[in-house]
Amino acid sequence: MTARHERASAILAVSTVIFALRTDDETGGVPQVWLPLVRRIREPFEGRWALPGGPLWVGEDLAFAAARTLSDTTGLTPSYLEQLYAFGDADRSPGAERVVSVVYWALVRSEEAERASVGDNVRWFPADDLPELAFDHNVIVEYALWRLRTKMEYSRIAHAFLGERFTLAQLRGVHEAVLGRALDPANFRRTIEASGTVVATDEYLTGTPHRPPRLYRYNDQIDLADAGPLPRQQHPFEGRNA
Amino acid sequence: MTARHERASAILAVSTVIFALRTDDETGGVPQVWLPLVRRIREPFEGRWALPGGPLWVGEDLAFAAARTLSDTTGLTPSYLEQLYAFGDADRSPGAERVVSVVYWALVRSEEAERASVGDNVRWFPADDLPELAFDHNVIVEYALWRLRTKMEYSRIAHAFLGERFTLAQLRGVHEAVLGRALDPANFRRTIEASGTVVATDEYLTGTPHRPPRLYRYNDQIDLADAGPLPRQQHPFEGRNA
Repeated sequence: MTARHERASAILAVSTVIFALRTDDETGGVPQVWLPLVRRIREPFEGRWALPGGPLWVGEDLAFAAARTLSDTTGLTPSYLEQLYAFGDADRSPGAERVVSVVYWALVRSEEAERASVGDNVRWFPADDLPELAFDHNVIVEYALWRLRTKMEYSRIAHAFLGERFTLAQLRGVHEAVLGRALDPANFRRTIEASGTVVATDEYLTGTPHRPPRLYRYNDQIDLADAGPLPRQQHPFEGRNA
Repeated sequence: MTARHERASAILAVSTVIFALRTDDETGGVPQVWLPLVRRIREPFEGRWALPGGPLWVGEDLAFAAARTLSDTTGLTPSYLEQLYAFGDADRSPGAERVVSVVYWALVRSEEAERASVGDNVRWFPADDLPELAFDHNVIVEYALWRLRTKMEYSRIAHAFLGERFTLAQLRGVHEAVLGRALDPANFRRTIEASGTVVATDEYLTGTPHRPPRLYRYNDQIDLADAGPLPRQQHPFEGRNA
């Protein structure tokens, strides 16, 4: 070794990427992936949009801090947040000190997204058409979209974006929104059925004129929600006095 | 707010979980999942086995540090390391200061595993039968196994554990090793074929007496290797003078 190395330290922060499907009149009713952003009210990057988040406090666990800062800024309280990635490379922070941001993400249904309290400094944006964000948040959103598009299992998407019962056409519509392209209905059906991640029920969609389509459900024998390896510091949305 | 909160800081460390398949005489030739551990030669936990890893140096990127410490301790240099999870909860470190460990993982083929230089203080263990490890490393290995078993896509496992060409029976053998149970051959074939993640070639396995089985390859139009969202600080295994 030619030099003495010094152990790296860092300050800690959390951010959250929350994806929901929204239908926009401009796109002719085709659902698209949207996410909420928060306008920064102080330097650095004052006035720019950023992911919900903030600093971690002494004594606070990572997932807890992610849920707290998300709730404080947007009012959103998804039933779970999954860890996406830790960003902590040496040159990512504008200041002298390294900042490690642990990023959490969740998919929420449109109804949950609409319940969130949205003020002047919170706005939903289409994930594919964002302004220049604060810090490295554009990179984080692009990575989250890539993970959503390549790594999400069929049942995860069904569970997160649809209700308890859904038709294969509704499920295909969600996949088309995520992938941003049309899928062949027959191929989609074959792939889904072979995957075993959704299960046909004996129920049919009501309110259609004839040949009502069959309803499917999430296969709950497969637990794909990644709550992480550790027991939680309380439930993130329960009982913390601030 | 009832109290003034203090921003959390931490010291940074990296660890790596390297999975390989090994065939043990005791199990009658059935492959099992193994991983390399390093014996600690100082306190805390002196004498206990631990994941390869160590502290991050000032100026060093996370993936770089993971590759450096893995290579230094075990001689292993997998072609990529994927970020698994960041462990940084308030109570995980024995000392006063919070330690955030960013854990990387990789699957390596048996040949790569065997090339590693293994000394007195490095040993391979079956992942399902570990001693009590240092720190929270048992929890980390259990989580990595869960991720391997529930979240690895078919083509990922094919690519990581098998060569460029493989039969469906070989691929099923890998899945059986990972899952720890037998799979129905016909169901396995249907699921794999519908997934589109492996592609039939015009080649057949040689050296079998009759009806040689068809060889398949990884579908390289699907890029599932998660190198993370960021360009790398050099290549982790290239050119760093220490």
